[in-house]
Amino acid sequence: MDGTPFRYWDHQLFCDDADLTDIAGAAGTPAYVYSRQGIVKRFEAYDLALAGIEHRVCYAVKANSNLSILRVLAEAGAGFDIVSGGELFRVIRAGGDPARVVFAGVGKTRDEIEYALESGIHGFNCESEAEIALIDALAGRLGKKASISVRVNPDVDAATHPYISTGLRDHKFGIDIEQVEGVYQRAATLPNLKVEGVACHIGSQLLDPAPLQEASGKLLALALRLRTGGVPIRYLDLGGGWGVPYRFDDPRADLASHLGAIRAMVEGQGFTLFFEPGRSIVAECGVLLSRVLYRKTTPRKEFIVLDAAMNDLIRPALYDAHHEILPLRQPARGTIRADIVGPVCETGDFLALDREIPELFPGDLVAVMTAGAYGSVMASNYNSRPRPAEILVEGKTWRTVRARETFTDLVRGE
Amino acid sequence: MDGTPFRYWDHQLFCDDADLTDIAGAAGTPAYVYSRQGIVKRFEAYDLALAGIEHRVCYAVKANSNLSILRVLAEAGAGFDIVSGGELFRVIRAGGDPARVVFAGVGKTRDEIEYALESGIHGFNCESEAEIALIDALAGRLGKKASISVRVNPDVDAATHPYISTGLRDHKFGIDIEQVEGVYQRAATLPNLKVEGVACHIGSQLLDPAPLQEASGKLLALALRLRTGGVPIRYLDLGGGWGVPYRFDDPRADLASHLGAIRAMVEGQGFTLFFEPGRSIVAECGVLLSRVLYRKTTPRKEFIVLDAAMNDLIRPALYDAHHEILPLRQPARGTIRADIVGPVCETGDFLALDREIPELFPGDLVAVMTAGAYGSVMASNYNSRPRPAEILVEGKTWRTVRARETFTDLVRGE
Repeated sequence: MDGTPFRYWDHQLFCDDADLTDIAGAAGTPAYVYSRQGIVKRFEAYDLALAGIEHRVCYAVKANSNLSILRVLAEAGAGFDIVSGGELFRVIRAGGDPARVVFAGVGKTRDEIEYALESGIHGFNCESEAEIALIDALAGRLGKKASISVRVNPDVDAATHPYISTGLRDHKFGIDIEQVEGVYQRAATLPNLKVEGVACHIGSQLLDPAPLQEASGKLLALALRLRTGGVPIRYLDLGGGWGVPYRFDDPRADLASHLGAIRAMVEGQGFTLFFEPGRSIVAECGVLLSRVLYRKTTPRKEFIVLDAAMNDLIRPALYDAHHEILPLRQPARGTIRADIVGPVCETGDFLALDREIPELFPGDLVAVMTAGAYGSVMASNYNSRPRPAEILVEGKTWRTVRARETFTDLVRGE
Repeated sequence: MDGTPFRYWDHQLFCDDADLTDIAGAAGTPAYVYSRQGIVKRFEAYDLALAGIEHRVCYAVKANSNLSILRVLAEAGAGFDIVSGGELFRVIRAGGDPARVVFAGVGKTRDEIEYALESGIHGFNCESEAEIALIDALAGRLGKKASISVRVNPDVDAATHPYISTGLRDHKFGIDIEQVEGVYQRAATLPNLKVEGVACHIGSQLLDPAPLQEASGKLLALALRLRTGGVPIRYLDLGGGWGVPYRFDDPRADLASHLGAIRAMVEGQGFTLFFEPGRSIVAECGVLLSRVLYRKTTPRKEFIVLDAAMNDLIRPALYDAHHEILPLRQPARGTIRADIVGPVCETGDFLALDREIPELFPGDLVAVMTAGAYGSVMASNYNSRPRPAEILVEGKTWRTVRARETFTDLVRGE
């Protein structure tokens, strides 16, 4: 847990200066708990490592879009990387500045593009020529000039889970780097566009800086070629993707030295750098609190049944993701080997399989660690389960930043 | 599409007598569309095949819990198989009779058990001795007698996707058949229980009746042994699990002959049979309508970008599920081979990979077939996408049975 806001104090697990047992008692379980201080620190790590060079750190809203987290980041000076109209609505609702928003994604609709243009976002990261043409047409109709970058697919293997690797030629994202210069030349002729950026994003949860640096090098070379060819590129958007150690014994890659290397590569060439971190800002600053409902022994296996399930956190089932699970009260007991599962009626509903874990009994509380990113945002009502509460810790105090859903919420609109 | 409510009329895809293109035009996309008539027919197929033997068909609410679908099934005489308090709330809200409800699941909470007892449900399918003891205690406190069955794990391989196979010894569900007789003897001594059923459920999407019949045989033998041992078993709950042909060229197993075989096995022995079908009632009676946003060609691949995504239908990403995809207007054009993807920013966001499909262009409408089960109930707001509208077709007419979510819905409770 080094480098995260979570640690044991006198055998009780704390988030900053708040005792998670108190929070679970008052707010109930399951509940997501986030550290405000942790999130700000992670954001500042980017900002600091880039001090002195023109840059913007655009938080990837899809990782965790809770309004209070967006507000914290807006106050810290973040821009925002969005992928939908709904995310733009959230940013604006949270007091974020639309002029600091970049809009990515392969399926931007006409309504979303108009909403973004009317809101005055910084620009679009475009994924296809059809999209570029559509943005030009809609900007023209609204009497605006739209700033665009083209998302380049650099054909770099991000070496991560196939579902979150995005920079290979076989992927739906971006435009192939071999073909993109023609696209830029054609886009530059369109009347309602300012073609001023190159962008890439090769994947998520990358633990090795090498592919990120390889992609950045390819992007820089492209930007310089485009300038030579008369396209006045000002922005280099290097995307996100920086990973976090989901296993406590995973090594932690050095973000500052990675950013230093990128900076050395581009410094003095008049580019403004954009980064789009999501997971690396919020993942380790959040946990999912849960209570043990049952302990069940079959002839071959032990099961711990929690009150949190795959509908609350789908990452183990969907990505084979590993999340450490810690008791809120550090026990004197020994360990057992068990499957940690939820109440949902399918075998895919697990949080950990065949895991060695301190012995737990019904009523005990646990924290599913490193759940701040791609946790609550992917929650569903599967099995008609209300989605969990979300809590923000601010030093010693805490408050509910999303109310637990009720049964009445489940049937809204029906 | 034989045996489903969907077919082409004059090159337009219809649900019963409603033109899906009209529905998409009026209701927008993405949208789930269900056939009332189809659902009733599927339910009646069970009811008819079991006529003359005491039985109850309890629809598995988790497959699709839309209130209007529950209402249709309640009117047709269905009972309900629930797995949570939220599902019980839905059944009651839809006018279902609690006395026809069975409550399954490994993680029933104290609140849920009390709610079920107070509502007067038919009974509990219990998954562990700890749960049996808890139900006894809570029933005693409320001055009730709770009817229970024990869910038996018959150790039968259901030969389906590992996430939805539930009847092997390594699974979290049920109590091992080798150990269950002692559990029954102990449960029979508890003062606030009527121990009167045996239950099993070995998995979902089974295309071969053999494992279901093997499990039924084991369950029947157990029930007879228990009777001999003095436990007055009246109910045999054989669960659900009957599969549907997701590929149009998959063979369709013969439900009536399967139910006939079960019936021949148990007839004349004084048991009431319970079945808990979910998928086999609703899956083929629903589609997800979507519109093509972009067509994108990369050096190696063709992509069709739809306005529906993994947040709307997660089955392809989570279970490697195959869904046929049909144009709403049958084209004269040829076919292409493409990945059919959504706008969500990850490579796991696909509805079909490397699929031969009639050529499609932006603006074209498609139906993702066989999406009536485990579709809308698993939808999330990932990427801050509002969940789709749901529509019920009744003959020629249709109505919205769940409103499309709005941006304001996204931030409710924050």
